[in-house]
Amino acid sequence: MNKLDSLRALMRSRDWDAVVLTGSDPHGSEYIPERYKQIRFLSGYGGEASGLVVTADEAGLWTDTRYLIEARHALEGSGITLHPQKRLGCEDLARWLGEQRDLTRIAVDALTTSAGFADALQQAVGEECEVVGVPELLAPLWPDCPELPQTPLFTVDSREGRRAKLDFLRDFCRTRHCDALLLGALDEVAWTLDVRASDIEYNPYVISYLLVSANEAVWYVLKDSVADPGSEDALERIAADGVRIEDYSAVLLLSEDLGGGGRLYCSPDSLNIALHEALHGAGVEMVAGESPVAAKKAVKTEDEIEALQRAHLLDGIAMEKFLFRLERELEAGRSVSEREAAILLGRLRGESEEYLSDSFETISAYGPSAALPHYVTPEEPAPRLRREGLYLCDSGGQYLCGTTDITRTVPLGACTLQEQEDYTLVLKGHIALASAVFPEGTPGCRIDALAREPLWKAHRNYGHGTGHGVGFLLGVHEGPQSIRQDLNPVALEPGMVVSCEPGIYREGQHGVRHENLLLCVQDGENDFGKWLRFETLTLCHFDVGALLPELLTQAEIRWLNAYQEKVFRTLSPYLSEEETRWLEKKTAALRD
Amino acid sequence: MNKLDSLRALMRSRDWDAVVLTGSDPHGSEYIPERYKQIRFLSGYGGEASGLVVTADEAGLWTDTRYLIEARHALEGSGITLHPQKRLGCEDLARWLGEQRDLTRIAVDALTTSAGFADALQQAVGEECEVVGVPELLAPLWPDCPELPQTPLFTVDSREGRRAKLDFLRDFCRTRHCDALLLGALDEVAWTLDVRASDIEYNPYVISYLLVSANEAVWYVLKDSVADPGSEDALERIAADGVRIEDYSAVLLLSEDLGGGGRLYCSPDSLNIALHEALHGAGVEMVAGESPVAAKKAVKTEDEIEALQRAHLLDGIAMEKFLFRLERELEAGRSVSEREAAILLGRLRGESEEYLSDSFETISAYGPSAALPHYVTPEEPAPRLRREGLYLCDSGGQYLCGTTDITRTVPLGACTLQEQEDYTLVLKGHIALASAVFPEGTPGCRIDALAREPLWKAHRNYGHGTGHGVGFLLGVHEGPQSIRQDLNPVALEPGMVVSCEPGIYREGQHGVRHENLLLCVQDGENDFGKWLRFETLTLCHFDVGALLPELLTQAEIRWLNAYQEKVFRTLSPYLSEEETRWLEKKTAALRD
Repeated sequence: MNKLDSLRALMRSRDWDAVVLTGSDPHGSEYIPERYKQIRFLSGYGGEASGLVVTADEAGLWTDTRYLIEARHALEGSGITLHPQKRLGCEDLARWLGEQRDLTRIAVDALTTSAGFADALQQAVGEECEVVGVPELLAPLWPDCPELPQTPLFTVDSREGRRAKLDFLRDFCRTRHCDALLLGALDEVAWTLDVRASDIEYNPYVISYLLVSANEAVWYVLKDSVADPGSEDALERIAADGVRIEDYSAVLLLSEDLGGGGRLYCSPDSLNIALHEALHGAGVEMVAGESPVAAKKAVKTEDEIEALQRAHLLDGIAMEKFLFRLERELEAGRSVSEREAAILLGRLRGESEEYLSDSFETISAYGPSAALPHYVTPEEPAPRLRREGLYLCDSGGQYLCGTTDITRTVPLGACTLQEQEDYTLVLKGHIALASAVFPEGTPGCRIDALAREPLWKAHRNYGHGTGHGVGFLLGVHEGPQSIRQDLNPVALEPGMVVSCEPGIYREGQHGVRHENLLLCVQDGENDFGKWLRFETLTLCHFDVGALLPELLTQAEIRWLNAYQEKVFRTLSPYLSEEETRWLEKKTAALRD
Repeated sequence: MNKLDSLRALMRSRDWDAVVLTGSDPHGSEYIPERYKQIRFLSGYGGEASGLVVTADEAGLWTDTRYLIEARHALEGSGITLHPQKRLGCEDLARWLGEQRDLTRIAVDALTTSAGFADALQQAVGEECEVVGVPELLAPLWPDCPELPQTPLFTVDSREGRRAKLDFLRDFCRTRHCDALLLGALDEVAWTLDVRASDIEYNPYVISYLLVSANEAVWYVLKDSVADPGSEDALERIAADGVRIEDYSAVLLLSEDLGGGGRLYCSPDSLNIALHEALHGAGVEMVAGESPVAAKKAVKTEDEIEALQRAHLLDGIAMEKFLFRLERELEAGRSVSEREAAILLGRLRGESEEYLSDSFETISAYGPSAALPHYVTPEEPAPRLRREGLYLCDSGGQYLCGTTDITRTVPLGACTLQEQEDYTLVLKGHIALASAVFPEGTPGCRIDALAREPLWKAHRNYGHGTGHGVGFLLGVHEGPQSIRQDLNPVALEPGMVVSCEPGIYREGQHGVRHENLLLCVQDGENDFGKWLRFETLTLCHFDVGALLPELLTQAEIRWLNAYQEKVFRTLSPYLSEEETRWLEKKTAALRD
């Protein structure tokens, strides 16, 4: 009996008309531990999705345009319908359920479903249908579900320091007339306590909760992870700053740490139903709202910015060595697979002592593979690179000095005119945003079109956002700012880091994406107000082999020449003589 | 005793702690009859404002950045504080009142205050303070307040026709489970009944209400206006389409036309408190929401588009004759004042038999005058034009074949480098938006920055929106679409008309604005989706005398040359030989 059938049997035995799985974890994370990969367990689809719905006779998976092609492949023959979603979040999925007839009980997993999602779902399906949170919903089908990871802890020295950050949260509580604040988002806990680990793949987080009240702070974390000296030391430092360490499971009893009852500020998106019900049952009044940490940590401190520049130096060295080696291997007629290329890049990043891990799974995609914006490079035998067309590599590193994210699209030989046009138009879009100047208070959605207009003029576009925030030795995706089509009103501020990654994707043919990380900086003040612009953090040349210079304006050529020159000047001291000569050619100025 | 003192005396006698006047009329109009110009009566300031507040010891006027300089002049010595507002609408004013102490009763005028405004105000000041609607609040101070105008009616033949439009509204009512719908916005009544008049200056409206229920339609209009044969005829046509004509004042009894009670769909922004209370008192259940007319009439029909092209031909002829005459007058050393120039332009527009009136008061502004985006040209003695610097003229006409709105900034002689830079940068912004291509579903706020980025790059900007909708022989400003900084989610659609009017303003020096009207049109479909672009409707050359061509890209020069050539080709057949020779020089191509 396949998994869907088993689930439906379970549904019949429990009187559930539908089951909804969100693909998240108890903390509302984007990247989740193996233990919570319920959608992959049931559907075989391992990418991001905003939900899987199973009813007695239907099953559907909702995901956005970035993942359509990949999801379509994964779901073939699974009996699960793919639903492309227009909006981010669960809106579409919830509406679909609202349109189904005769649903009286919908079961959601109590741990991996946020209170926010459950609310939205309940509203969509109406009163006549009950949304019930079920503890360990899949346990009967998934006995060998993996345990939670516990990895060594280490602390980072932030400019503000833990005590100041805790006081910042206490001040915020007062403004909201709350007795305490609960942080459930793993990156926010890590930022506040200046602590890191590797509990989540690619994300240096510690699976834990943080409760901050006027007179104390309690960190709910898996005790057993205190197995090594480094972790011991980290826990001591944290405790020394007035943080009480409790076992992770004790979070369900946090009402006692609140002295029973009280007003608790928390974000419904990082609060799962199980915890929500426990708090509600204990008479805690929950005040729902955006966490103040997101906006605060998005603005990097001077120290963080300095460190980030070093992170991008290290990353640039690894990238150039990688591109050099790749070109040499192919010139020598040696066979290189997408997978081998990804492994080579990881090894070169690893040559830095400050490298911890990649910041997400490297997208190593040749030719048609690159038409999937979020292609997952398969295990061997993976597609092999050939000396023609475009190779796209989207990757990043977690370094002690910060998080990186870079995409380069590289011509491996002759390119079609369309490949060259796409390569050039996307670069025009990249330059337009990277060189933008804008007034204080401008939200990213108002300048997103700058990166798209050169593509739009040629009737081309891409189905993903142009830019996301990037954490400091935290998640490679963070808010609250973004540069995308959604009308997100959060203004860009000096100190914020955003990616700039326009692209073009042609199913079955090729994909192009040019991604650098940008730092938002001040650009003076005059009668017209205060001005902002971007400084490019990423250091790696763009390969002009696929470029049609005649499509560039003089200003665009000047930008490109200046960038290439800066890349060469900054990186060459760290490269071998041979690599340096090669990079000098690669970064030779185009005629203006 | 000055007017503020008289008002305060009235306030004391009535126990009002504050009086709020909104500067609107009973229909929530932007342009209002003399009878309702209460803010000008009290403050002397005649421009747009979102409100005047008077308390026992304070008085304040709220207006946005466009009107600051003008308002500052008008309020000098009036004892009224000018409050620049950040957001459109009454939000700032309401917040200010919310922050005042000891307010228990705020009086608003029952006729000129919308239910929507009153709600927002009540929410801002909280329960302990009562917002009361007072009928004819200013009557004791303003005995000689002018009567309502009544002007001849005439009908227009729309492609759909009255009956179809009424049925469209009936269908909408059904979807909202309402028994009837009330239109209070004057442009929406005029559009639905295909009727026009000139009750409002610059706006061909009939002061009236329209009630549409399943089995009838009632038009509440001032009966006495049925004094001329044309109006008689118009009323007959309208009645012939199943519309009952009632006296304007009978709208207060419309609950009877509803058969008492019932569900009435209406927009709180065009429903004044007096009417709202009458309906409420009669047991009518009011369902508040956006009127469906705005979105419908924003998308012009093929017939309307054809007519609009003729309107812009007529307007272009008048504009070119005006610019020619102006240049000749100044060359001949004759003295021309801002006012005389405005009068000349009005006379030239009037030479067309299809011209009804201007579509707003012409902004004829020389040099520093133009630094006020909404400058009001004073009566004689007005500033005189000199043969140097920039002259800005923003004007438009109401023609039987449509509404126009155009701004040209003209060098009258030598210009400073800054004037030339500003002129050129604004033109770059204009071209960027006018030549934009964008995917279906794009709201204007996402492409507003295209018009600003060339200015932003030079640290320059403008404090007003880039584009507004324009009606068909209706208001020169209409929604729901817009191209501005506010995150208005309404998508641009084929058939919509928007203005494109970037600018730069330097107090005490000069102002630049280049405005054309654009028609949104389809631009094909491919793998990437459906595409839209703009077609320029306006026909009038840009004077390259103030242009710095070296600041333009080749693509910008190509756009400009093509536009100038089209202007000459289209208009020259309607110009005198001398005017044609002149326009040929003015539109000579720049070297690409």
